[in-house]
Amino acid sequence: MKLHALGEDRLLAQLLPKFAARKNIIAGAGDDCAVVAAPAGGNLLLLKTDCVVEGVHFETGADAVAIGWKALARPLSDFAAMAGVPQFALVTMILPSVREVAWVKKVYRGLQKAADKFDVAIVGGETSSTFGPAVVSVSVTGFVEKKRRVLRAGGKSGDELFVTGCLGGSRRGRHLQFVPRIEEARWLTRHFPVHAMIDLSDGLGVDLPRLARASKLGFEVDEDALPRTRSCTIEQAINHGEDYELLFAISSARSATLQRKWRKRYPRLPLTRIGRLHRKFKIQNTKWSGYVHFTERR
Amino acid sequence: MKLHALGEDRLLAQLLPKFAARKNIIAGAGDDCAVVAAPAGGNLLLLKTDCVVEGVHFETGADAVAIGWKALARPLSDFAAMAGVPQFALVTMILPSVREVAWVKKVYRGLQKAADKFDVAIVGGETSSTFGPAVVSVSVTGFVEKKRRVLRAGGKSGDELFVTGCLGGSRRGRHLQFVPRIEEARWLTRHFPVHAMIDLSDGLGVDLPRLARASKLGFEVDEDALPRTRSCTIEQAINHGEDYELLFAISSARSATLQRKWRKRYPRLPLTRIGRLHRKFKIQNTKWSGYVHFTERR
Repeated sequence: MKLHALGEDRLLAQLLPKFAARKNIIAGAGDDCAVVAAPAGGNLLLLKTDCVVEGVHFETGADAVAIGWKALARPLSDFAAMAGVPQFALVTMILPSVREVAWVKKVYRGLQKAADKFDVAIVGGETSSTFGPAVVSVSVTGFVEKKRRVLRAGGKSGDELFVTGCLGGSRRGRHLQFVPRIEEARWLTRHFPVHAMIDLSDGLGVDLPRLARASKLGFEVDEDALPRTRSCTIEQAINHGEDYELLFAISSARSATLQRKWRKRYPRLPLTRIGRLHRKFKIQNTKWSGYVHFTERR
Repeated sequence: MKLHALGEDRLLAQLLPKFAARKNIIAGAGDDCAVVAAPAGGNLLLLKTDCVVEGVHFETGADAVAIGWKALARPLSDFAAMAGVPQFALVTMILPSVREVAWVKKVYRGLQKAADKFDVAIVGGETSSTFGPAVVSVSVTGFVEKKRRVLRAGGKSGDELFVTGCLGGSRRGRHLQFVPRIEEARWLTRHFPVHAMIDLSDGLGVDLPRLARASKLGFEVDEDALPRTRSCTIEQAINHGEDYELLFAISSARSATLQRKWRKRYPRLPLTRIGRLHRKFKIQNTKWSGYVHFTERR
């Protein structure tokens, strides 16, 4: 069945789950706004929105469940970068009216899969028709404890830089299936004072300069130490993007303890020391692009 | 200058205002998530997202400032329907890379104009390229006091139904310039127990049945009493949509006092009693469509 044969209310009624069981949701999908419990006193509210666009972030033929997963996982990765706890998501689907309802349902299944995995409630949805490619725009709210919030700014000169996982080659398929590092970020800030953190969405070559700039510092990277996905070059590890791994800065005094405890807690996820923050830049070559241009953005 | 000649970071840096002055914003645009103060204890968090799509919600040649205004005003109208106070907005712009930067800046000027008018802070933005029409997706968070929240459900049999303003003919131009009834909704719930409320985005013919259904009631409407925009027929007032006026249900015992106080407070904005909620439907004709189909959605 094509979308135009189904009303918007009926589409949303079929897609959106019922939430009566969750006590922090007063009114979910089906009213003008979602009404939810505010974070407890002493916590900060976190807000993030992101989108995936057909032909830009996913190919038309891509697995629809994976598209839904990615649409929610992207803003969740930003929550990880803040060491935050995501709670509620709103989903806007902008769809050609000739799109199959079955495709839309698969996208929602992917969204719900990611929501379940990270204990996020999808509390509202909006749909619109379009004459162009499909767009899934997701906004997420949640909280972080005042003392545990981590910004991009906050890195100190001499801090060591670490990345989780492996870099590069994400576009071969991982970009549709990545796991936001929320659990790991929460563990990190529970046990260590993390000075600055960012998730690697545009690539180390773009996101490290962003973190350094926000901290008003330069950086030094041991390129040979970069954890690379199999068969990726150093250049690809720096520039491919869509890794959705964490990059963070921590005092060098904590470096050894961190590495030991991490290996014990996450034996299957590499944590690699890749360099330091410095008063002066030590990178002179051109692998570090510094800006993503509009046409290159994925 | 075309968008592709400008990096995303630089575009956002040019567009997004600086917020250092506002004490409830800890980190605005430029970090992974926006970090803001949570609503005070005893308040509920409200969440809403909505979008405008080129060719669907606005024509390509429409005034770009008005497009920005509408993109933010739409979710704000949903806040009005909940008697809520909007506080923070995130803006996602999905744009063809050949679009003029000047156009994008005008859209932002419209967004900012609406934000200033309703004391909303734009705390974050995301951009993406697209091979299709431009999309502006806006999500807004804010709060409502527990005792003042108004849902669509909550209407009681015998309640009188009121609408603000005039209905119909919005597509002639008002749909790009409407004023969300936030101030009026706040005034209403400060002085009267409003049982149920909704904003008229899809038209009375769709939105009144939604309110009645949520309240598990039928309704009776005096069609001749409907406040119509000049030169609109009754049928147009019911079905045009995009009025963004408030429809609400209130005890008949309060009806006279409400009308008297309203005239004094808002002498230039009509408030019209249009009917009642009932145990049984009294509408038999076909003006009341009941559902918006995907292809008809504006």
